[in-house]
Amino acid sequence: MSLINRIEAALEQHFSLAAAASAPPRLIQAMRHAVFPGGARIRPQLCLAVAKACGEDDPELTDAAAAAIELLHCASLVHDDMPCFDDADVRRGQVTVHKQFGEPLALLTGDALIVMAYQMLARSGRQHPMRTVQLLSVISDGVGAPNGIVAGQAWECESRVELSQYQRAKTGALFVAATCAGALAAGVDPEPWHTLGDTLGEAYQVADDIRDVMMQADQLGKPAGQDAHHGRPSAAADLGLVGALDYFNRLMQTAADSVPMCESREAMRKLVLSESERLVPPSACEIIARQVKAPVSVRVSA
Amino acid sequence: MSLINRIEAALEQHFSLAAAASAPPRLIQAMRHAVFPGGARIRPQLCLAVAKACGEDDPELTDAAAAAIELLHCASLVHDDMPCFDDADVRRGQVTVHKQFGEPLALLTGDALIVMAYQMLARSGRQHPMRTVQLLSVISDGVGAPNGIVAGQAWECESRVELSQYQRAKTGALFVAATCAGALAAGVDPEPWHTLGDTLGEAYQVADDIRDVMMQADQLGKPAGQDAHHGRPSAAADLGLVGALDYFNRLMQTAADSVPMCESREAMRKLVLSESERLVPPSACEIIARQVKAPVSVRVSA
Repeated sequence: MSLINRIEAALEQHFSLAAAASAPPRLIQAMRHAVFPGGARIRPQLCLAVAKACGEDDPELTDAAAAAIELLHCASLVHDDMPCFDDADVRRGQVTVHKQFGEPLALLTGDALIVMAYQMLARSGRQHPMRTVQLLSVISDGVGAPNGIVAGQAWECESRVELSQYQRAKTGALFVAATCAGALAAGVDPEPWHTLGDTLGEAYQVADDIRDVMMQADQLGKPAGQDAHHGRPSAAADLGLVGALDYFNRLMQTAADSVPMCESREAMRKLVLSESERLVPPSACEIIARQVKAPVSVRVSA
Repeated sequence: MSLINRIEAALEQHFSLAAAASAPPRLIQAMRHAVFPGGARIRPQLCLAVAKACGEDDPELTDAAAAAIELLHCASLVHDDMPCFDDADVRRGQVTVHKQFGEPLALLTGDALIVMAYQMLARSGRQHPMRTVQLLSVISDGVGAPNGIVAGQAWECESRVELSQYQRAKTGALFVAATCAGALAAGVDPEPWHTLGDTLGEAYQVADDIRDVMMQADQLGKPAGQDAHHGRPSAAADLGLVGALDYFNRLMQTAADSVPMCESREAMRKLVLSESERLVPPSACEIIARQVKAPVSVRVSA
């Protein structure tokens, strides 16, 4: 089964358990709306890929960890889209949860998805309870205070923020959780996988900033120009498009180089390369390059 | 150390870890505002009391489970108070989080407190990882879909709801989590403690409905008359004050009778009795009784 099919199957299985007859039907509908159809599912795929590279021996636990990370990501999107933050109408090409189901249910949907992530871990954790407790720690630290994605979002409510700290928390932390959780689920020390998650996460956020400036809403599946509109810290605003692309390429090179020695090191490096091209397509690089009448940066080589 | 002092100490300890230098300062302030000073801390006290009755042998794990339950409760209050739900100005006698820190931080504060609950479990769970995985399950089920407090709140967004199902989810579920978590943290089968949590939780919600009708805001520490104002299901509206008090007293009797055989069974029954008088003070019973010119119900006897 492909990585993405494993993730969808794990999510579907756990939704069937959450959707008991006693559940409020509209809450379950809203939760499904937030999770299906998914985006690129990049974080859970990364988690599964690392677990495989580490000699995965408990696929149920890996699936639960990966799907939990995706649920936490989806929860953050639902809350980020709400009127008190982005007030977004569209996400992943469909109407946002609060637009479809109202603000109260959107708030509860985010909460229920956070908790569902932990319910998944609990259900699949009995074969390796110590790994599960470690996963609980690593995944929670990717989301909560002091350095997780919720803290990253909270930096938007502070008067002073340092761009790299903000991006590391807002995006990087859950990528770190993804790579480290992959290793942990396989019973392996997560530390060597920390840099890959950290660097990919920051690169992903920089790419998001670049796309937010360059692309149209119909290409993004969500409104464009939101960073400037909300006055948010942005690599594109801070460094300019050329500087941001250069920074992105250096981050992807660091990410590729950081893959620890393991049987499938080359496959992991190739995954990083293909992500690089997916995140900032060659066409976007060309447009940016034309702005300075010369190539601005060398792409990552696998 | 008294039960409540243990809870405050555990909460303070985990806040000192969350408030690392890298955390957004206003998020931490808002999280503290939501948790300190506390209310009656009834759920975590119940958890600790059950653990002691079950021969507690890992107090750090019990403290973490109890404090996690309190954090989840505080998170639900922060989100419930927001404009899209109760739009409340006051909670526990102080300004609500969104009034003090704004809606975006209130939303994030609830999210961060939910995750912090799990961070606490993770930090204290390594001595007994299997118990911790079971705690993860029981506590999460008290909060999430299909039957936890988030689902209870979501029933307010449905066109049809059965009062007892609504109250069981909205309040009872976290009380069940509290009693069962107390047993689990002590390494004991939680099943015999289920009814105590379930019944106390329903009684607590009925008492809340009664107080919402009878008391003034300054006595409640939050706005009064909110159930009628928001058209929420309420035992007082459904059964009348007399009927609601009678139902409350029967629930407390069931709760007291349900305490399983254990060394401190009498102490647990007395705790239930004292809760009964705290929840609906004798003065309130007298006022209700005068409405029918006769005592409406017999109080629970220990």
